[in-house]
Amino acid sequence: MKIGIVGLGLIGGSLGLKLQSLGHTIYGVVNNKFNEKKAKEKNLANFVSCEFSLLKECEIIILALPIKDLLNPSQQLLASIPKDTIVTDVGSVKEPIINHWEKLHPLFIGSHPMAGTEKKGVDSGFEDLFNNAKWIITPTQKSDLNAVRILSELIQSMDCEICHASPEEHDEAVSLISHLPIFLAAALIKTVHQKKNESLLDLTQKLAATGFADTSRVGSGNVQLGLDLAINNQDNILNAISNYKNQLNKLESLIKEKNWDLLYNSLSEAKASRENFID
Amino acid sequence: MKIGIVGLGLIGGSLGLKLQSLGHTIYGVVNNKFNEKKAKEKNLANFVSCEFSLLKECEIIILALPIKDLLNPSQQLLASIPKDTIVTDVGSVKEPIINHWEKLHPLFIGSHPMAGTEKKGVDSGFEDLFNNAKWIITPTQKSDLNAVRILSELIQSMDCEICHASPEEHDEAVSLISHLPIFLAAALIKTVHQKKNESLLDLTQKLAATGFADTSRVGSGNVQLGLDLAINNQDNILNAISNYKNQLNKLESLIKEKNWDLLYNSLSEAKASRENFID
Repeated sequence: MKIGIVGLGLIGGSLGLKLQSLGHTIYGVVNNKFNEKKAKEKNLANFVSCEFSLLKECEIIILALPIKDLLNPSQQLLASIPKDTIVTDVGSVKEPIINHWEKLHPLFIGSHPMAGTEKKGVDSGFEDLFNNAKWIITPTQKSDLNAVRILSELIQSMDCEICHASPEEHDEAVSLISHLPIFLAAALIKTVHQKKNESLLDLTQKLAATGFADTSRVGSGNVQLGLDLAINNQDNILNAISNYKNQLNKLESLIKEKNWDLLYNSLSEAKASRENFID
Repeated sequence: MKIGIVGLGLIGGSLGLKLQSLGHTIYGVVNNKFNEKKAKEKNLANFVSCEFSLLKECEIIILALPIKDLLNPSQQLLASIPKDTIVTDVGSVKEPIINHWEKLHPLFIGSHPMAGTEKKGVDSGFEDLFNNAKWIITPTQKSDLNAVRILSELIQSMDCEICHASPEEHDEAVSLISHLPIFLAAALIKTVHQKKNESLLDLTQKLAATGFADTSRVGSGNVQLGLDLAINNQDNILNAISNYKNQLNKLESLIKEKNWDLLYNSLSEAKASRENFID
């Protein structure tokens, strides 16, 4: 198929490499000449251009753009999407994007691959990013069923497992398992760094091992993404933070009250829940 | 050297394998016949026994026991430690252990290797656990300098990097970068599981990717260890939780107030701090 990808960063670039390896012809649009040169060097697409007109013959277009650009697409982009082309995005929130794009393009189907690293930009993509990843499709009552079928087949051909959810369900679920951890990790990093005591900070740095590195990792991610999530999934994230604080307060009370039996039970419960939850 | 290891779980078993590979003769004491058989099968030590008398010729003894056993050592153990033998432990808190053991054995030097996995028990040790790990030694004014030197050389011979700290500094530093994350991860797991909505829990489980797995990982660790830390490093952990809640409250307020510029700055600061902090 002729597939357009708008944005060749971590997600778009990885898609370009993977879809080329499956025999598709990829048309990649980037936002400046520097990225165009880089993307060509890295063979992220068969054709790369800063001009949206490159998309005019594509059968599927994947918008691999930051959320704020998805919510404010340029007129040139909109004018370059053929009427009968299936369009999807890869944004980490779905409801605001789908509300916006279903009005702009009837063949728009929202989707979200659950894959990523801390990297971003035209240097960060790699072919294996999506191997065995979950990929959520969030069709609505307005969605064209044939478009959903074609998009699903394309995603499955990349060794991804498809999940279906409504945009609302998606946004609540990811607020818990994907967005909340970003703010928790940022708060942890800030807690360690708030100490005025330089020698203590030095010592914590020397001693920080895999436990701290893992727990804080997503606090080192794409800052603009964290902000876009807060802006566009605000209610769900605030709910998640509030529920989290309740849980942390309960653990704190058990420690304060030296209620060691209940603390043991509570930590055991968490351990068992996680072991059931994660493959 | 003739080295005794009391307890052949994750830490003790890994030490037994590593120290044998360096040519030492290892005398491992375990708590029951089942573990004795397993430890022999896995060659965790040259000699394995349930009898503390095995330790009577050792030049160094490493107590690789749970914190609660370190704080309540059996009379048989104490009676079997030769007077001129250097003793160390590997416990994750130092002040209560050192206060206790300096009275019991003048050649006791507290120490703590910063290495671990979620596993425990006689099956969990492996030779490479300590490669390039930090290992803290926490001597006090009472410590014998020759004993500190001999212990330091042994630790360095295992490719570990030695840090010195007072027991108090150690306990505060690890409360931040090692103990706090355990309770944060447990609270995160509980937040995701508290929802009564089964279909949402199903969806979060399908979508949970590496971000959630990493942020929650230490919530899946040894429950008894988590409890022992809370009991024996209570004040530092409560302080750390309280500081953490302040940091999380600040982020929550920025999201509530839609103060996006400050939120962007705050997330950027966290990202930069972590990148400077972690190699």
